[in-house]
This record gives sequence, C-alpha cells and structure tokens, in this order.
Amino acid sequence: MKRWELDAVGRGGPQLRTVAIPEPGPGEVLVKVAAVSLNYRDLLVMESGMGLSLAFPFTPGSDLAGVVAAVGAGVTRFAVGEKVLSTFSPGRLDGPALGTARVPPYKTLGGAYPGVLAEYVAFPEDWFVKAPATLDAGEASTLPCAGLTAWTALVEYGPVRPGQSVLVQGTGGVALFGLQLARAQGADVIVTSGSDEKLERAKALGATHGIHREREDWVEAVYRITADRGVDHILELAGGTNLGRSIEAVALHGTISVIGVFEGFTVTGPSGPLLLKEPTIRGINVGTRRALESLVRAVDATGLKPVIDARYPLEALPAALEHLRKGAFGKIVVESH
Amino acid sequence: MKRWELDAVGRGGPQLRTVAIPEPGPGEVLVKVAAVSLNYRDLLVMESGMGLSLAFPFTPGSDLAGVVAAVGAGVTRFAVGEKVLSTFSPGRLDGPALGTARVPPYKTLGGAYPGVLAEYVAFPEDWFVKAPATLDAGEASTLPCAGLTAWTALVEYGPVRPGQSVLVQGTGGVALFGLQLARAQGADVIVTSGSDEKLERAKALGATHGIHREREDWVEAVYRITADRGVDHILELAGGTNLGRSIEAVALHGTISVIGVFEGFTVTGPSGPLLLKEPTIRGINVGTRRALESLVRAVDATGLKPVIDARYPLEALPAALEHLRKGAFGKIVVESH
Amino acid sequence: MKRWELDAVGRGGPQLRTVAIPEPGPGEVLVKVAAVSLNYRDLLVMESGMGLSLAFPFTPGSDLAGVVAAVGAGVTRFAVGEKVLSTFSPGRLDGPALGTARVPPYKTLGGAYPGVLAEYVAFPEDWFVKAPATLDAGEASTLPCAGLTAWTALVEYGPVRPGQSVLVQGTGGVALFGLQLARAQGADVIVTSGSDEKLERAKALGATHGIHREREDWVEAVYRITADRGVDHILELAGGTNLGRSIEAVALHGTISVIGVFEGFTVTGPSGPLLLKEPTIRGINVGTRRALESLVRAVDATGLKPVIDARYPLEALPAALEHLRKGAFGKIVVESH
Amino acid sequence: MKRWELDAVGRGGPQLRTVAIPEPGPGEVLVKVAAVSLNYRDLLVMESGMGLSLAFPFTPGSDLAGVVAAVGAGVTRFAVGEKVLSTFSPGRLDGPALGTARVPPYKTLGGAYPGVLAEYVAFPEDWFVKAPATLDAGEASTLPCAGLTAWTALVEYGPVRPGQSVLVQGTGGVALFGLQLARAQGADVIVTSGSDEKLERAKALGATHGIHREREDWVEAVYRITADRGVDHILELAGGTNLGRSIEAVALHGTISVIGVFEGFTVTGPSGPLLLKEPTIRGINVGTRRALESLVRAVDATGLKPVIDARYPLEALPAALEHLRKGAFGKIVVESH
Repeated sequence: MKRWELDAVGRGGPQLRTVAIPEPGPGEVLVKVAAVSLNYRDLLVMESGMGLSLAFPFTPGSDLAGVVAAVGAGVTRFAVGEKVLSTFSPGRLDGPALGTARVPPYKTLGGAYPGVLAEYVAFPEDWFVKAPATLDAGEASTLPCAGLTAWTALVEYGPVRPGQSVLVQGTGGVALFGLQLARAQGADVIVTSGSDEKLERAKALGATHGIHREREDWVEAVYRITADRGVDHILELAGGTNLGRSIEAVALHGTISVIGVFEGFTVTGPSGPLLLKEPTIRGINVGTRRALESLVRAVDATGLKPVIDARYPLEALPAALEHLRKGAFGKIVVESH
Repeated sequence: MKRWELDAVGRGGPQLRTVAIPEPGPGEVLVKVAAVSLNYRDLLVMESGMGLSLAFPFTPGSDLAGVVAAVGAGVTRFAVGEKVLSTFSPGRLDGPALGTARVPPYKTLGGAYPGVLAEYVAFPEDWFVKAPATLDAGEASTLPCAGLTAWTALVEYGPVRPGQSVLVQGTGGVALFGLQLARAQGADVIVTSGSDEKLERAKALGATHGIHREREDWVEAVYRITADRGVDHILELAGGTNLGRSIEAVALHGTISVIGVFEGFTVTGPSGPLLLKEPTIRGINVGTRRALESLVRAVDATGLKPVIDARYPLEALPAALEHLRKGAFGKIVVESH
Repeated sequence: MKRWELDAVGRGGPQLRTVAIPEPGPGEVLVKVAAVSLNYRDLLVMESGMGLSLAFPFTPGSDLAGVVAAVGAGVTRFAVGEKVLSTFSPGRLDGPALGTARVPPYKTLGGAYPGVLAEYVAFPEDWFVKAPATLDAGEASTLPCAGLTAWTALVEYGPVRPGQSVLVQGTGGVALFGLQLARAQGADVIVTSGSDEKLERAKALGATHGIHREREDWVEAVYRITADRGVDHILELAGGTNLGRSIEAVALHGTISVIGVFEGFTVTGPSGPLLLKEPTIRGINVGTRRALESLVRAVDATGLKPVIDARYPLEALPAALEHLRKGAFGKIVVESH
Repeated sequence: MKRWELDAVGRGGPQLRTVAIPEPGPGEVLVKVAAVSLNYRDLLVMESGMGLSLAFPFTPGSDLAGVVAAVGAGVTRFAVGEKVLSTFSPGRLDGPALGTARVPPYKTLGGAYPGVLAEYVAFPEDWFVKAPATLDAGEASTLPCAGLTAWTALVEYGPVRPGQSVLVQGTGGVALFGLQLARAQGADVIVTSGSDEKLERAKALGATHGIHREREDWVEAVYRITADRGVDHILELAGGTNLGRSIEAVALHGTISVIGVFEGFTVTGPSGPLLLKEPTIRGINVGTRRALESLVRAVDATGLKPVIDARYPLEALPAALEHLRKGAFGKIVVESH
C-alpha cells in the first residue's frame, strides 16, 4: 500500500512510499482510507514539529473517512464494511480532555500518534466513530477536526439561540462550519473577509452579513450591523491582537471562542470592556468522541454539507498542501480510490 | 449634615462641607448613612475621573450601609427604620447589565451617579436592598462591591465544588471575600502575597495554602501544590501580563475571573495553553441586585464576617484613603455616628 | 370605546359594553388594541374563576398587540405610534417569577390583573415590550403567552441542539410554536395527533414525523422512530397520566416540559424509568419580559410566522371562544379595526 | 476464600461458601475486599430479583473498598497494594449513562454483573477508582452508591449555593450524605424524621432544622421555617405520593432529586404548583466514574466522614441485612479481616 512518510522535520517534505498493509492487533480495526481532510496544523507539524516528539518515519494527517477492512481480536464496536471517521484526540471519550495544567493535552493523530495519509491504517477501535449516512467520504473526512471544533464552540459550549448573532473571521474550514452550524440554530451570521468574492460565496451559504475587513474597520461595522448591541458569539480565528478587537465587538455577556493562531501565539486585549461586558473567552481544543457522534447525528438530521474547496488524489498531496498554504474556501481533501 | 465634595478631578481632594439634608422625592428613600466602605476605584475616580462625566460638586463613594430615615411618596419596598445597603450599579436588577457593545455599562454610585460619602443620601428605593441581620454597619457596607464581585465570580458564575481549588491573588477586599466564599463552598484556597505576615493572616482565615510570590514562581508553586493538576478557579486581581501566568496555572476546563487592573489596562497571555486547556476567562462587573440579595442571605446563613482592616470616622476620610492607597488587608471602612 | 366585561364567574358570559377610553396615569401608556389572541385558560377563568379573586366587571384576555396612542407623565420606554405587545405576567422582568412556595406566582393579565379584550387599555409602561417588525398585529398577539411558553421551554431552558428530537403533543398554539422553534434550532420534530389532516398540516410546517395517537401506541411509535433512543425533549401538553407515558418515551437525560393540564390536575408516572434515565421534568410558567424580547428578536431574524387558525372581529368573541373550545390548529385571534 | 452466594431469588437467602480465589484475566485486577456497604436495593435484588436476569449462583453487593492484590496482563491504572473502590455502574465513565429509552441503563455490580460480598473479586481495572486517603475501608465503602447518589444530586447537577436550603427525607445513607454535602456547600439543611432521637443526631451532624413528620405536617413546617419561601433543593427519598408534597414544599425554580421508592413505584403530584413554580424534578441514577473520583477528592479535601450505623464481620451478613431492613441511621457495613 501507499503511505506518506516524513523522515525529519522541515527537510524535503513527505515521501510517498510503498509499505506493507498493517495487521490489526487485538482491539484494533484495519481501515481502508477513502479520504483525508487537511488542516493548516499539518503544515506546521511537518515544518516545525510544533514541539512534539514525533516518531520517524512520521505519517502526517489526522482526519480520515474510510471503511473497516478487517477487525482484530475482541473488537465489538465495528464490523467489516462499516464506514467510519477517525477521532482527532484518541482516548478523549467524554468530559474533560486528558492532560495536566503543566502538560496540556495535545496527543493527536498525525502528531504524538501516527497520522492517516495512507491507504490503510490499523488503530484501536476506540479511536473511531460511525460515519454519517448522508455524506460522501471526502465530505465526511472534514468532521473530526474542523467540523468538531466549530460544533464544540457553538453547540457543546454554546448555546446559540435563534435571533442571536455569530461572527466568523475568514472563510476557512472552521469558519464555514461555524457559519453553517450557526444558521442551523437560527442565528444571524456575520462573516469577515478580505475578498469580495469570498463574501459573496459566504452569503450564498447563508451568511446574513459580510464585512470586507480591508475596506472598513470590522468592529465599527459590527456596531453598525447590530445597532451597537455587539455580536453574541465570535469565532476568534486570527488570535494575537485581534482578540482585543473581538473584546470590543462582543455583546454584553457574549462569548469569544479562541481557535486560531494566525496572528501569533500571544493574545492581547483591553481590560476595560473585558471587565464591563463580562464576556466569556474560551479556548477550543477540538472536542470529544461523544461530541463527534452528536455532530454526525446532526449532519444526517439537518442535511448540512461541508464545503470542500478542492479534492486531490492521495498522490497529489504536495499540490494539496500548496493550496492549503495559499488559503482555501472551506476544506482541502485528499482522496484514495 | 456633612458631605464630602470634590470640585474638580485631581485637584486638592474632596472637602467636607455642611449641606442641607436632602428631601426624598416620589419613589425615593432618605437613608442615614452609618458606614461606607472604600474601593481603590474611588481613588481613581477622584484622581483621574476614569473618563466619566462627573457632576460637580461630586461626592465619591459607592458602598453604604445605613438606616431608612424617611420615605417619599409611593415607596413600597422599605419602611422607616429598616437597615439597607446600596447597590453598586443602580437599576441592574437581574440578568445582563445595562449597556451596549460600544458603550459598556458603567453607571455606578460615586461615578455617573452621585456618591455616598455623606451623612444622608436620598435615592430611589430600587437602588437599595435589605441589610443582613448578622453584620454591623461597617461589615455590611463591604458587601455591595467587594463582596458581590467575589460572589458573582465564585457563586453566580461558579460553581465552585467541594474539593476544587481556588486561587486568590493578594489579600485585598475582593481576595479575602473570595477566600471566605470558596471555603464556604468546600474548596481548597491558595493565596498569593508578597508578605509572610499577610499569608499567615490568610491562613488564619481558612486558606489552605500560601505562596510568597517573591520567593518562588507562583505558577510553579501551583503545580507543586496541585500535583500538576492546576487550580480550578483563579480570581485574577492583578491583570496585565499576569493573566498569562494565570492561563499557565489554571486547570483543564478551569475558570479565570478577571477583576483587577493593578498591572495595567491591557491583558496578554499565551495562546497554546488557552487553546489546549479550554479555560473560561470572564470579566466580572460586580453583579446584580438579585445577586446581592442572595449574598446577604448567604452571609446570614453561614455566619461569614467580612474582614475589615481599619475603621475611620467620616471626618477622617483623607487618612482612610491614604491607608487604601498603601494597600489594606481586606476592607477600609468610614463610619458616621 | 368597546370592552368585553364579565359580571360574575360562570354566568351568561362576557358582555360587549361601551365605556370611556381610559386616561394613562403617571408611568402608564394608553394602547389602542389591534389584536388579542385567545388561550384556553381564558375559558377556564370565565367559567370557573380558577380560584382567582377577580375584580368585577372583569375583562378577560391577556395577549394583545397594539399601538401606543398616548403616554402618561414620566414614560420613557415608549412613544406614541410605537407597536407593542403585552406581557403575560406583569412585573416579571428577568430571573425567577414573583411569588412564594405557599402562594405560587400567578398574577397575570386577564386574571389577577385586568384583561385586554377592549379597544383601548391603559397600563404601566413596564407591562409592554416592542412588537416584532415582521408580523402583523394578529400574528404578533400570539407571542406573549403561547409563543413565549414554547420559547421558554425549548430555548431559555433548552438547549435544543441540531440533530436532537423534540416531540409536541397535539397541534394547539403552544405545540405549533414548539414545532417551529425546534425546527429553527435544527431539531427533528415528532407531532402526535388524533387527526390525519392535522398531521399533514404539521408536516407542511416542517414536522419530520407524525404519530396518529389513536392508531398506534405513541410511545412505541417513538421507540420505532428513534431506534429505541427515545426523544430528547417533550412538550407535555396533556398532563395527568400522560406524563407517565412521556417518562417512558423520553431519552436518557432528556427533558419533559410540563405545560398542559387537559388530562387533569394530577400528574402521575413510573419511578423506574424516572430514576434510571435521569430526565429533567420541569413546569413552564410562560416566561419573563426579557425572554419575550428575545423571542421578538428571534421572530424578526428567522422569519417565523405564527400559525393562526382563524381571525374574528372583536365583536365576534363568543364565536371565537366556541372555536377555541372545539380545538384549534394553532391560535385563534380577535381583531379590532 | 469465602463468598456469599444465592442459588435462587427469594428462597433461603445467601450462603457463605468456600471457593477458589479468582485469577485476574487480561485487563483485570484482583482486589482483596476490606469492606462492603449494604444498600436497601441488595435486599430487593435477593428477594425479588427486581426483574434482572441474575446468573446463579449469584453474589450480591455492589460497594466495596479493598486493596489490589494482583494485576492481570496489560493493567495500567493500578498497582498491587493500591486502595480502591468499586464503581456501581461499570463502564459508565463520564457523560450520559448507557442504555436506551426502551431499556433504561441498570447494569450494576450485584445485579446484572456479579456482586462483591466475598473476600476477593477479579474485575476489569476500569471498574475501580482510587480510594480516598482519609477514610478507613468501612467508611470508604459507602461512597460508590450512597455517597455518589447524594453527590450527583447536590453537586454534579446542583449547584447548591451558600445560603440556600436543602431538605433531606429521613436519616438513611443517602440522606445523611446529602446533609453533609449540603453543609459543605454552605447551605442550610432541614431533616425530616419520625424520631426525635434521629433528629437530634442529625442536628449533631450539622442539620440546621429538624421536622418530626408525625407531629406536624412537614410541608407546613417548611413554609414556617423558610418564611413561605420554600426549600431550594429536596432529596425525595420516599417517592410515591410524597413527590406531590415535595412539589408543594419546593421553592420557585427549586430542584427535587428523586431517589427513593419506599412509598411505591408510581409518583404523583399536583400540576398547579408544578407549572407555576417551575421546579426541576430529576431522577438520580447514582453517577459516573468521573463523578466518583470528584467525590473522593472532595472527601479528602473537606474531611467529610461518612456516617456508619454499625459494622458487621463478613460472616454476619444475615444480621447486617436484618439491621438494614429495620432501618439504619446512615450506612451498614460488612468488613473482612
């Protein structure tokens, strides 16, 4: 079978190699990978290691949709032929994540654990959930990280109520899931972008307002759109000093879900409105396996279709990563056939 | 009657003047002030105005305990002779505060509204609540701002559960209320201070752990005390870059209540642990009238006694403010007789 | 002006009389009534008094939409010409209702307070909220009781999450609001009814499943539809022994909102599934003024249109009440012109 | 080793037999049982089977404290010599219980799974948690069912806030844990009992009020004690028609946790106060493994000591059961040495 492997951080990029199909051990399932969706984090891991102790040769990628091809001894949750998704943080079933204050939890596929950019993987059955019935493999592969992150922010922690407003920054994978999930809960959605064309595409997906962030101050635009009320829930996807702008834009008792780090690894903001408006600022670390199951159920019930900007064959991973680096409208997916 | 009045921000300080006792208008009560507790904010308002449009002559002070001396037409909530407390944010009865995203709510006594450093005040009856039965006037006067701020953080927003840990920074008024309320809910309490003597006094009040923040890194001390688990709820009373240390010290899914601004009006912190540990960071804007009534009830039920560092007669306000400026262990109170 | 008046409980029914247009006192607004929606409770009050001490002549009706025609001294919240709605429980602004364990809160318009079946009413400004911009008066008049009851159950107390299931019993006013609000939050909706035609109309409104409760056991049907999972949130509109069926039908950790009393004033149910499934059973007492404002905002944002079965002129109240008694699909409204 | 075994439901009672010490299989630990606390449910299982399909010979008992004596292959959570507690519902780690609406979850030790009235048991390591450091084995054995039930009601679902009131019915095991946990959270506690002596003992444990339920109507007594406000949280330990009395006694927006079934398997109550006061009524099904770990932590932090009425040697199980049948003040424990 084919598998992408990296021999060292930051040098040369991953190589597509032919290796033996793994055998599922006791409690494991062998999954034939149909699609893998990419995250910007995959680039960071390959280029910098992100401080993780990777095992080389290292296979990147965390989010797969596939089909169970074989089961090891003692497997009870899945049978051969069932469609499954991977979980981003193996072992986080429900409740708080696994880790300490000193060593925060960050054991993920394509990181501390092996990745999924391969034709087959063999992992413990607990690392998978049932795939949705209403999505193809490429669409389904976008749920374990991008979809679940937006779901955790807007549904698990929410609640987003009908008539509230939600603002998403940009039009990447998490942003568009946020747009769709907020609309599914009856909320107005404001999208910020530096591109008129992307704002139009966001409106076609249901966004109620678009702000071109280079043509006007986005916080002033929020005041205008909301008649000074502010926005009830912000998906903070830029980070850095942008958190301060979000604190200015948020409504009284609103929520800011901090997800992205594009503008740096230090967040800053003003104390005054933070104290006076009593917003909740909360980091989002993807989510639990139980929440992913709830998302799958919601996708099937509501007919939500994830937005895929482009699909590449497994062999074309380098082109897919290049697309990702330039910025995508929604998700980039790599598929096997 | 006597009343402290300021004629302009930042010049000369307040003057003690003799003025006519006010008449309660329709819906108002006349209250004979027995005690006023001081907040550091009172100094900031007198010295800088804090951007508020004050009406001069301006009387500072927000937190009183007193006795109803007369009632205006149509008053139904109070009778002459009843003991009352003021509310810090008049008109905020329950639910979200009053304001917008653009103009956050900050209409308080001794600010946008007149203050209480006087022998009598006449205000609308809705601005008061019944005083606790178990406290003297000086103790009771500490509830409307310092007591309610700690209550809002640890009880209204809480919950603090038995066996959890709470960390309070320093030994000022809000910190010691936080200590006492956390203990009343069965939590362990860690206090940080730059003074061994204050740490000892905090332990005598029930603190389970003290950290001398000049002799050791307080975050490392938290890891040591909690076996790396981190602390479940932090009262962030310093602000500024200290918020970043609190993000390092907090437990997974813990809470940081941002209250103080001693270290500056810009908060900063690291994105990594914010994303991975999913803490809730929330500004605290004192609280509602309904919450103050709940605090009064709790004080009477549990026997909690606010910590007063010193009591001054009304005439000695300048000395009281000087004490406040140097830092107090708990609250400074000014009393009339 | 015209006003319906009842001279005694249970005798003869209300009379349409000509009386003077009231003058708004200090703090009051005079509202020209455009529409009044009827509740089954109005019949109970007129026929039995419901244990309330009514003031005769008594005007029934609680839910109006109208226009401010004049304002009394000191009014600040409304101006002449503004469209308004009444609040069902005057004085309940936010937070818990007003009352005690011994004397539960039940001071409503058309009950302990006067009613609104008249061409004009003069009430305190605090008893009104701004009407939605997107509804006509008849539609808007359905929000204060039926709309708010469903909103309190499914949104304020909720949350209802995308992909969850909600069951509403019957097709009356609260049931159809429940259907629409649940759909607006991304939930599947199951409707029970004794009429195929009503089930079809409910499906046209968005219901995902209908159960004809005379042709099959509705609890077994729920098991079938949900693959034994049960339903996440039930609007219990029948009461009596039907609560026991709802306890059987509810999912683990689901919610049963108890609203209706058609099957009697004593609820009963089995302990076994109550203990093992840990559902939340909660009575719903309409809601707060703040929640009504949230509902108005949601209606304008989502385009929700209340379902009106029939509209009658004010003079035809007896015919409207007769329709109500027979059972309506949605709401019955009485309008003035 | 010795083990109690029942050969059939309802005939002859359990027999103390000598059997081989079990071998821990892969993933299992062998635990030397130091103490088992008894629940009334153990009697019901032995006498009626409670509808469960028991495997005979059946060993009753669900709550043990013991020491790990050996570990099977692949065990990672425990080492030989560690003190452990059993979990009442094996496999319920966190989040909702395991089951469906049709078949509610009730797979427990000493029920669908084997029991613990033996000198040794060998179970999967996931079925245990670490024991508290501050309790002896007898005390610790009371946590998995009685302690956790009260904890789930008053802490997990709570919150109980300082100054609130909690009412517990009777002085059995769950009631006294409820008393102690409510006090640890700063609440007033009202105890009802038919015995002056038990009321005195409850007051010695911290109860603030006692009601002799044969000498006065307990609901009227609650109104008297709370000045008509009602009680904020009731542990409903009687069930049956008593739920109706609890609905009368509960405060507005209060909580009734339904736990006991002494007065029958059908609960009944009045609709009126249920609708008007909006209480939350919720069944309690013991709790999760994660919650048991939180309780253990709280016990160690607060110094809470479970109340044991009597301790019997393992051989004296019949006498212990007879004591249980007559009613105990707190818990009955059986110990091995």
